[in-house]
Amino acid sequence: MRLILVAGTTRTAERDGISAAGATRDLLLHTPSADAEILVYGDTVRAPVTPVSPSGCPTPAAVTRAARELVGFEVTVVDGGLARPTGAPTVSVGATPGRDIAEADPVQTAPGAFAAAREYGRAIPDAELVVGETIPGGTTTAMAVLRALGEEWPTSSSLPENPVELKERVVEAAFESSEIAPGQAAHTPELAVRFVGDPVLAAASGLVAGAVESGTAVTLGGGTQMLAVAALVRHAGVLGPLTLATTSYLAADVPELRDATDAHDVALVVTDPGFDDAGPLSAFADGVAKEGAAMGGALHLADRAGSLADVTEGTLDVLSRLRGDYGP
Amino acid sequence: MRLILVAGTTRTAERDGISAAGATRDLLLHTPSADAEILVYGDTVRAPVTPVSPSGCPTPAAVTRAARELVGFEVTVVDGGLARPTGAPTVSVGATPGRDIAEADPVQTAPGAFAAAREYGRAIPDAELVVGETIPGGTTTAMAVLRALGEEWPTSSSLPENPVELKERVVEAAFESSEIAPGQAAHTPELAVRFVGDPVLAAASGLVAGAVESGTAVTLGGGTQMLAVAALVRHAGVLGPLTLATTSYLAADVPELRDATDAHDVALVVTDPGFDDAGPLSAFADGVAKEGAAMGGALHLADRAGSLADVTEGTLDVLSRLRGDYGP
Repeated sequence: MRLILVAGTTRTAERDGISAAGATRDLLLHTPSADAEILVYGDTVRAPVTPVSPSGCPTPAAVTRAARELVGFEVTVVDGGLARPTGAPTVSVGATPGRDIAEADPVQTAPGAFAAAREYGRAIPDAELVVGETIPGGTTTAMAVLRALGEEWPTSSSLPENPVELKERVVEAAFESSEIAPGQAAHTPELAVRFVGDPVLAAASGLVAGAVESGTAVTLGGGTQMLAVAALVRHAGVLGPLTLATTSYLAADVPELRDATDAHDVALVVTDPGFDDAGPLSAFADGVAKEGAAMGGALHLADRAGSLADVTEGTLDVLSRLRGDYGP
Repeated sequence: MRLILVAGTTRTAERDGISAAGATRDLLLHTPSADAEILVYGDTVRAPVTPVSPSGCPTPAAVTRAARELVGFEVTVVDGGLARPTGAPTVSVGATPGRDIAEADPVQTAPGAFAAAREYGRAIPDAELVVGETIPGGTTTAMAVLRALGEEWPTSSSLPENPVELKERVVEAAFESSEIAPGQAAHTPELAVRFVGDPVLAAASGLVAGAVESGTAVTLGGGTQMLAVAALVRHAGVLGPLTLATTSYLAADVPELRDATDAHDVALVVTDPGFDDAGPLSAFADGVAKEGAAMGGALHLADRAGSLADVTEGTLDVLSRLRGDYGP
């Protein structure tokens, strides 16, 4: 059992009010690099900051790390366009940081990264994979990619109040500057990602497509960004079994999730970590973050191993070992 | 507990008769990339070949992988100048492939890699590390580096008959083309590596120096290349505790090893995996490979965990799962 975190960036996240995956706009670009380090080492190594939301909610990577310490699964990080140094070991698939999707051709490396990740996914010998993402701003690019594929499913947000109108304006601007119109990339997922997406979607969908093609059991650990990955995989013509494992917080935010997974022939598993009264973790129950860094997939693995009840204490323990403050 | 494999290349290995770390000269440069994959995944992923010696002895990485499957320690790969693609996740410290040491200035990235690896080594949160290497040709560059530091200790070989005269001629050529003379780099280890060494020595010695400085318990898993790393660390003025854990095959080949480790205030642990009658593994007992890919360190961990007796069967099992042939 191996959990693969695809970590990268899109400058779309630097627009005001798009993402809660960092305390300030300047720190957002460090979040994926720090999340990868927390998963691998249990602490930051090169990243200058432990990711928190503006309101002080700790990164979901701490939950995934706690599940890993309980269950013992392997972790591998794929560089899906990191923009800041990480001390985590990373697999390269040729992805580079994504530009703002309102610019023309924001992810030129998407087709190459999709192909390289697909080859890599085919070659991984593990029988079972969980694949997740960390990319601030990723629900906006995921929304644009779903539209490019001709799909109208909503995407969630790391903010308690989903800035849907802002995201729709950004998506509209993306199509205005792009060579494709909504629905026009239905059978060319790598072009949907290239013109209106982000490099994490390219790497993750290639990886999942290749793994499924080679008979690996793949669980997508995450919310609507991983739903977009599932859609990309299906639009690539890969029809093998897929599961989406998400948190109860994400599922509560997106009532359409079961219909969306059904529409893509994806099994849905929802896990409640029970953070309601868990000190700094109660922010999750209040709708901050909700998902990310493969949290839903990691909770599913903890549940399967009979360790779900220990995740709260484990996460608080991980937080207590992190450098610096994680809260406000 | 984390085992860190520093994987890289020097074109010094491409001279005829220098190294057994590959079936042919053309395949040598793939060996570190493949070793890293075998440690991380238990099989090759992007590397086109499973490393074997010209006589068909399997790579020591299979032994390290078997120990890992028994003991469960974490593995991290540092890119110490890889020249061929790897599917293993790697930490970058800015190392690039080393040129033949008979060329002038063969490892220009050495000072930078030493410094970046030292920072990384300081930041790793684990309480205990095992550090090993995989670099064909590495005993020749290690010999040159020891001479640059003013030390006369011998180095071993992956070949059953150590080509000492050939290596001495290469080392002589290295000093002829270099800006330093033997002994002249006694207090500037990064220059010893830059002018007559290889990028793995730069990354590994920086990493170990930083880890020891931050109070981490470090075991060097390997033979005379890791002895050279210990010497570099001491010449960098880092005097904290160090252990060298090697195989009985390496120790039998280098009778001076205990004096050499004593001279550097390094504790020595020798572990016998008992491969004498173990089918393809008996080549180790015949003096092929002897060490590499942190094998001695991994055997020490297996011994400490009470699993040493299971390493033979575990290694044969790893070999049975590798793609393609590993033997003649």
